Amino acid sequence: MLSILKRYLIGKPLKTTELGEQKLSNTKALAILSSDALSSVAYGPEQILIVLATVGAVAYWYSIPIGIGVLILLLALILSYRQIIYSYPHGGGAYVVSKQNLGVIPGLVAGGSLLVDYILTVAVSVSAGTDAITSAIPILHSHTVFISVLLVIFITILNLRGLTESASILAYPVYLFVVALVIIIVVGLFNVITGHGPQVTHASSGPIPGGIALFLLLKAFSSGCSALTGVEAISNAIPNFKEPSERNAAKTLTMMGLILAVLFSGIMFLAYWYSITPNAEETVMSQLGSEIFGRNIIYYFIQGTTALILVLAANTGFSAFPLLAYNLASDKFMPRMYLLRGDRLGYSNGIITLGVASILLIIAFQGKTEQLIPLYAVGVFIPFTLSQTGMVIKWLREKPANWFPKLITNLIGALISALVSIIFLTTKFSQVWSILIFLPIIVYLFLRIRSHYEAVGDQLRLNNDIPDKIKGNIMIVPVAGITKVVERTMQYAQGIADEVYAVYISFDKESEQQMRDKWEAWNPNVKLIVVHSEYREITRPLLKVIDQMETKAHENGFEITVLIPQFITKKNWHNVLHNQSSLLLRAYLLHKRSVIVTTVPYRFKV
Amino acid sequence: MLSILKRYLIGKPLKTTELGEQKLSNTKALAILSSDALSSVAYGPEQILIVLATVGAVAYWYSIPIGIGVLILLLALILSYRQIIYSYPHGGGAYVVSKQNLGVIPGLVAGGSLLVDYILTVAVSVSAGTDAITSAIPILHSHTVFISVLLVIFITILNLRGLTESASILAYPVYLFVVALVIIIVVGLFNVITGHGPQVTHASSGPIPGGIALFLLLKAFSSGCSALTGVEAISNAIPNFKEPSERNAAKTLTMMGLILAVLFSGIMFLAYWYSITPNAEETVMSQLGSEIFGRNIIYYFIQGTTALILVLAANTGFSAFPLLAYNLASDKFMPRMYLLRGDRLGYSNGIITLGVASILLIIAFQGKTEQLIPLYAVGVFIPFTLSQTGMVIKWLREKPANWFPKLITNLIGALISALVSIIFLTTKFSQVWSILIFLPIIVYLFLRIRSHYEAVGDQLRLNNDIPDKIKGNIMIVPVAGITKVVERTMQYAQGIADEVYAVYISFDKESEQQMRDKWEAWNPNVKLIVVHSEYREITRPLLKVIDQMETKAHENGFEITVLIPQFITKKNWHNVLHNQSSLLLRAYLLHKRSVIVTTVPYRFKV
Repeated sequence: MLSILKRYLIGKPLKTTELGEQKLSNTKALAILSSDALSSVAYGPEQILIVLATVGAVAYWYSIPIGIGVLILLLALILSYRQIIYSYPHGGGAYVVSKQNLGVIPGLVAGGSLLVDYILTVAVSVSAGTDAITSAIPILHSHTVFISVLLVIFITILNLRGLTESASILAYPVYLFVVALVIIIVVGLFNVITGHGPQVTHASSGPIPGGIALFLLLKAFSSGCSALTGVEAISNAIPNFKEPSERNAAKTLTMMGLILAVLFSGIMFLAYWYSITPNAEETVMSQLGSEIFGRNIIYYFIQGTTALILVLAANTGFSAFPLLAYNLASDKFMPRMYLLRGDRLGYSNGIITLGVASILLIIAFQGKTEQLIPLYAVGVFIPFTLSQTGMVIKWLREKPANWFPKLITNLIGALISALVSIIFLTTKFSQVWSILIFLPIIVYLFLRIRSHYEAVGDQLRLNNDIPDKIKGNIMIVPVAGITKVVERTMQYAQGIADEVYAVYISFDKESEQQMRDKWEAWNPNVKLIVVHSEYREITRPLLKVIDQMETKAHENGFEITVLIPQFITKKNWHNVLHNQSSLLLRAYLLHKRSVIVTTVPYRFKV
Repeated sequence: MLSILKRYLIGKPLKTTELGEQKLSNTKALAILSSDALSSVAYGPEQILIVLATVGAVAYWYSIPIGIGVLILLLALILSYRQIIYSYPHGGGAYVVSKQNLGVIPGLVAGGSLLVDYILTVAVSVSAGTDAITSAIPILHSHTVFISVLLVIFITILNLRGLTESASILAYPVYLFVVALVIIIVVGLFNVITGHGPQVTHASSGPIPGGIALFLLLKAFSSGCSALTGVEAISNAIPNFKEPSERNAAKTLTMMGLILAVLFSGIMFLAYWYSITPNAEETVMSQLGSEIFGRNIIYYFIQGTTALILVLAANTGFSAFPLLAYNLASDKFMPRMYLLRGDRLGYSNGIITLGVASILLIIAFQGKTEQLIPLYAVGVFIPFTLSQTGMVIKWLREKPANWFPKLITNLIGALISALVSIIFLTTKFSQVWSILIFLPIIVYLFLRIRSHYEAVGDQLRLNNDIPDKIKGNIMIVPVAGITKVVERTMQYAQGIADEVYAVYISFDKESEQQMRDKWEAWNPNVKLIVVHSEYREITRPLLKVIDQMETKAHENGFEITVLIPQFITKKNWHNVLHNQSSLLLRAYLLHKRSVIVTTVPYRFKV
């Protein structure tokens, strides 16, 4: 039943050799790896205007230089991530770069904050997309959390089906969104040039009151930088590209940077020119759309694709998280299960972990995840800073041909990223302080996990100790009566063991004598040990018998095995009708005494 | 942790030999086994008046003859259950009586409806008690369900602690309730005799409109009979009494009958004399109390003890249900687990089942369980009828000394009970139809369970077939690498098996060759079988290996055992760090192939 459902949802398992067919073409890769970055155009300009609006319309002019600042940072990031892609073609992005150039702890800080960040991305973007949907269809409003959870489950399943399949389905909305934004920008600019645009007198660029000026501009700038989250995703996912993967990844990154720059500056400029004022009721995108087109079909097309891209931004996380988890796991900082490829060759455990974690986050915040946006931005800029710094160190250390311009590129990237991180931490401390607590915890966990794996590895490694020879075997069989099952178990035990004992745990004296008599009559050449259990328990009296035998057995180099018969019922509900003490007993023996336990199945015919 | 909590809640385990000390004195038994019956005095008279009120005050006079009718039925039931106690001193009540005299199906109908009935008793009475509490303390009103559930949990834990302990705690409220009712009756009657009572002119006993008269009177009578539920509890619980248990049980039953008769007729008469009219806002008991005492401390004492007895009525179910389940289980109609005595010598599984089922019922009905009352009454009168009929058959068949008066007693009991059942089924069909569906289902389940046990018993019984001799043992050890664990497992296998094979499941070709080379270098004299798993699965390729070996093995009379190494981690969370495939593999092998599985534990030192 379950496995049929699984087949239906996930599809047939793929052979390991089919891995090559699962690689992404550049068009598909662009679509699924840039949806996060591109979607931020839908809210980045708005974030800048919201901060400026606190001063008044007089300050809107500053959106132009701030926008240019964001573009410069974008340029620096694209250039430096291109360099990262060529230097670290196996992916891993900020984690690998920081670890190799700055040390383990910075690497883990970068990796940990990106992991958390992808979870936040999924939760935040799906919630935002759901909000857009429920704004359009108010009847769904009371089901926001439910819809968000359904969407996450849908995206999770798509990703479990495999990269190419999810890319094929999810590429359309991404390109539609790009088309929609290009339409709005082209028509808007055409209006501006032909003078069909608004006949507004733009407020002059009057100075903002001195004291707060810089702080405010920095805050607006850092808010705008939230449009740059997701830029790093490609560098984590290089192995998903077709060969030559680093060339393709670099090309795709450049392409994404170009599209992002065009869309961002277009929207930013139009918002300024059309004097859009941010307000709580209507997004900047929606205002711009209705200014330029009125509320016609094009407007709704733009709104629809915007809602869709917000949901799909989550998909970037689903591409990058499992690969990052794989990188951390292969360095033993995360559980080994993240190394395994699932039925469809994706790292299913990473995909499922991300899905579950973001669903929990959505439920915990009841779908109101806007409060998480600053946390999410700072969680991106910390690894940005660390990876760029790492690259600077690398160039200084290796000094390859043309190292100086490369160093300058990364240095600029590092400085701006660090600046943005600091601005976030200072201007929005009340919303981002928690990162200062959970990052150290995550790094501590990473280290604990590795130290466990290393300790275990040391224990398991073969050394030159010659283990004590096993000289013989004692088998203990708990019996509750004399049945076919006991007969079969005894036969098996007598076939392989040197000494066999049957142990009968009695609850009352009458049954004790009865059992002894019956056993004698049956007489399978096995000694019956009868133990009276005053408290009607099975495990403890049995453990006592084992303990008594153990000392003697170990002196003689004998090994003790407990044989437990287990009924295999034909129908599941029949299990209720048979005491499940064998399962408990087995767990108890393995964990409390490290006794070898053999389960002898007895399959019921009815 | 859990076991400390258990100790604290339930108490230290008791030895089986301490069973005698857990028996009940008559005073305690009366308290815990009659709380259900006695509590019905709190609502029985009201039920009669509610039906009569539909005609008008003119009909209240009929409450006197109806009350006398109920008393006659009570007398018949007490007398016949005394006879049941002496005839069936091992308890089991209606179930055993019906089964032995009428056949298996009537017995199961009686047993099944009583089981369901005890669940209903707990749900209904705890909900009613909670209503009384929340009426007094309105702030708790929105937490009714939560409070009811807590109360059920409390009573469940008390019962798990053991009979005597719960009896000691619960006896006081029961006797306080009796005292409260005696006070109200004595003072009320004193007022009536001395003429201090109400100077009311009682409505004359005008005839009720002919057509509906009989139907209505019968309905009122049957409603009044709901005061008799719980009368059978003592007959189910005879083994809980001190020796001589049947004498003591019979005495206690008579005592309960007397008290019930006095309280019921007293309240019935006063309600008539004081012209109490039932209304939705105030119970008849409360009206009577405030008429006689005004709202002083005595009034509140009466109200308080009434609320308490309603909750404690649940306890009767907790005494009777586990014993009835024990009786059904010992006849193989219910799972074997109901035969086991818990730490405190009670039949814990029965107690827990009753607690859980009634909590589910309370939650499903959101605490509004009044609708279940008719169902609950009819669920009692069906076993009443069956058991009395069974006794009639018994006397006819056995004809012991003095059989004729005994037969008449049971015959009257049977006829009145049957009449009440039929009245319930006809007058309240819309509320009780479901019993016609679930009783057959329960009886069907009982029969299915027994037929499973019997089939299993036949299979397990030793016969004269001499089982095939096991001529040798093949052991298969899945290995994932060459480690200490593999070393230990190999050593064990080689010590006891005739042939040992290591199986390595490879996911890629490189690791395959690597493993072969390493194995050759290590060379433990064991053949390594390498299987390539295209779909990165472990179980299926391993099953294939086993299948291939099986045919040959069985031809030669060899037995196959799979050895699975299992890591025992030092801390629970470490389990996350190790693939739990060994557990899955084991379950799969046992259930799909009936292969013997040996688990070799390897305990980590860190």
